Amino acid sequence: MKKLINSTDSVVTDALAGMAAAHPDLRVDLAHKVVYRRAAPTPGKVGLVSGGGSGHEPLHAGFVGHGMLDAACPGEIFTSPVPDQVIEASHGVDGGAGVLHIVKNYTGDVMNFEMAAEVCAEEGVEVGTVLVNDDVAVKDSLYTAGRRGTGATVFVEKMTGALAETGAPLGEVAKLGGRVNARSRSFGVALSSCTVPAAGGPTFDLGDAEVELGIGIHGEPGRTRAPAAPARELTRVAMDAVHDDLPLSGEVLVMVNGMGGTPLVELYVVFAEVAAYLREKGAVPARSLVGNYVTSLDMQGFSVTVCLLTDQLTQLWDAPVQTPSLRWGR
Amino acid sequence: MKKLINSTDSVVTDALAGMAAAHPDLRVDLAHKVVYRRAAPTPGKVGLVSGGGSGHEPLHAGFVGHGMLDAACPGEIFTSPVPDQVIEASHGVDGGAGVLHIVKNYTGDVMNFEMAAEVCAEEGVEVGTVLVNDDVAVKDSLYTAGRRGTGATVFVEKMTGALAETGAPLGEVAKLGGRVNARSRSFGVALSSCTVPAAGGPTFDLGDAEVELGIGIHGEPGRTRAPAAPARELTRVAMDAVHDDLPLSGEVLVMVNGMGGTPLVELYVVFAEVAAYLREKGAVPARSLVGNYVTSLDMQGFSVTVCLLTDQLTQLWDAPVQTPSLRWGR
Repeated sequence: MKKLINSTDSVVTDALAGMAAAHPDLRVDLAHKVVYRRAAPTPGKVGLVSGGGSGHEPLHAGFVGHGMLDAACPGEIFTSPVPDQVIEASHGVDGGAGVLHIVKNYTGDVMNFEMAAEVCAEEGVEVGTVLVNDDVAVKDSLYTAGRRGTGATVFVEKMTGALAETGAPLGEVAKLGGRVNARSRSFGVALSSCTVPAAGGPTFDLGDAEVELGIGIHGEPGRTRAPAAPARELTRVAMDAVHDDLPLSGEVLVMVNGMGGTPLVELYVVFAEVAAYLREKGAVPARSLVGNYVTSLDMQGFSVTVCLLTDQLTQLWDAPVQTPSLRWGR
Repeated sequence: MKKLINSTDSVVTDALAGMAAAHPDLRVDLAHKVVYRRAAPTPGKVGLVSGGGSGHEPLHAGFVGHGMLDAACPGEIFTSPVPDQVIEASHGVDGGAGVLHIVKNYTGDVMNFEMAAEVCAEEGVEVGTVLVNDDVAVKDSLYTAGRRGTGATVFVEKMTGALAETGAPLGEVAKLGGRVNARSRSFGVALSSCTVPAAGGPTFDLGDAEVELGIGIHGEPGRTRAPAAPARELTRVAMDAVHDDLPLSGEVLVMVNGMGGTPLVELYVVFAEVAAYLREKGAVPARSLVGNYVTSLDMQGFSVTVCLLTDQLTQLWDAPVQTPSLRWGR
């Protein structure tokens, strides 16, 4: 294993120090491992907190900033953040209008965010929660009861973030988050395994001419292995899985996401196939993201996430955002 | 070899179709393989054209848009664009104020852009050229007489793009480009080889515990091979090479660039070391980029590029930019 790290123990802390040095709009609490907007809390605004294991960058810390998250709690690599981190972050972003926790559906994340929410409630901080569970690949998985939360997290964080900036109350922001999740679906394909620094070797073995269909973002098994195939066929498998679960129609937001080790030129090849598939079904790729947003360390592969847009969701997507890894408008 | 492609012959065209589908602000001429701003040419503005082999995405097509390039000419993977592409693009962006060619110093690129510039001149289009040659690793290399052009290309394209938006004349924009290049230096480190689709296997072999110091963006050899080492040591080698060539002081713009297969979490680890190194030398990392900007397909590794800022360069860097892969301001 070769990695650009100083030691397997210090990866997350060292990377957070790098974020602090690179992004003056962020304030990084290295002791508690929380990344805040510099000006948090914003009085009168619902505070948005997300978090999860590290190794999925830019998720979540790369989405802290105006129009998106107020704080992110990175756990160790592929390890849930601890309740103390989430409690600390929730206090740090509470501007008097309550705090929304955005949680990907993994057993550890759900448990730790729940514990944190209980403590916050006892301490007088109102907390709402959005659970993201968009991955159609498997019903239950290695780390999850029910569906896994993957790419739709980016959509939920962006759209709830935009709504929170308007001063909307906690209940409304939470409800919107649930609606975005309900209208979104994902499916991932791996060409190679990731390598977790502390493990020192690949999480799973995949043959030279094999792919994993329905891969999870920690290398958890998907639906099945299959022979490697052209991008067109792999894309069709992913899109069929999405479409079978949530028929695609109207204007959609679509993300073609790299797993961390896949060149951008290949992601654009996939996007062309996704766009063609959508048009074939009578849907319109009205908004899009192509790049690395919810990664799995150095894994090669992609995931596709689709959200059925409404006028409100399109407006919230288009609203200004200023974070390290998503920024537009002003 | 497993890749998200349909065929080794169609990678570039298929990816361009994906760019066209994803980015409504771009106009993609698939026949000539040129990516334009939708509204090109802009009357009275110097038109900026760059290009080079594909496989370095988002360079260059990801930097087409307001405040940066007017057109990009992607060649086949790691292959220079042909003169006809550059001629076509130059005509397409000529708004009457002339056209600037931004060329990375590789023998094929230089020759083909020169041929295109001659034809353009005969046809009455005024052309200026900026040659980028920022890589301090080697004096000459496999594909280059003199220094290679790498990361500084992003700085040159951004800053000349910002100046061109103000209506500055061709001579002034070209001169600025030369100044940015002269004040910038780069050095790259590879942990693994890239795999070119048409070749079907790794470009070079690197041992399990070995890195290549001074790597080129096509996998050309660098200065030397060395044992794998902590990020702190690899960063120091890169920064020493830069500092030995151009003493670092004052405010600097610094890019920690991923080679395509390296997770973002590792790039932030490197950035923390770069920032510490700069402070040690009395320099200030006043502006930064951390991510994949000048890649080498799926290579694992990083490069660092530093530019000594002036007030003018900082202003041009901060000016609004709206491209697929760099955007801020308005």
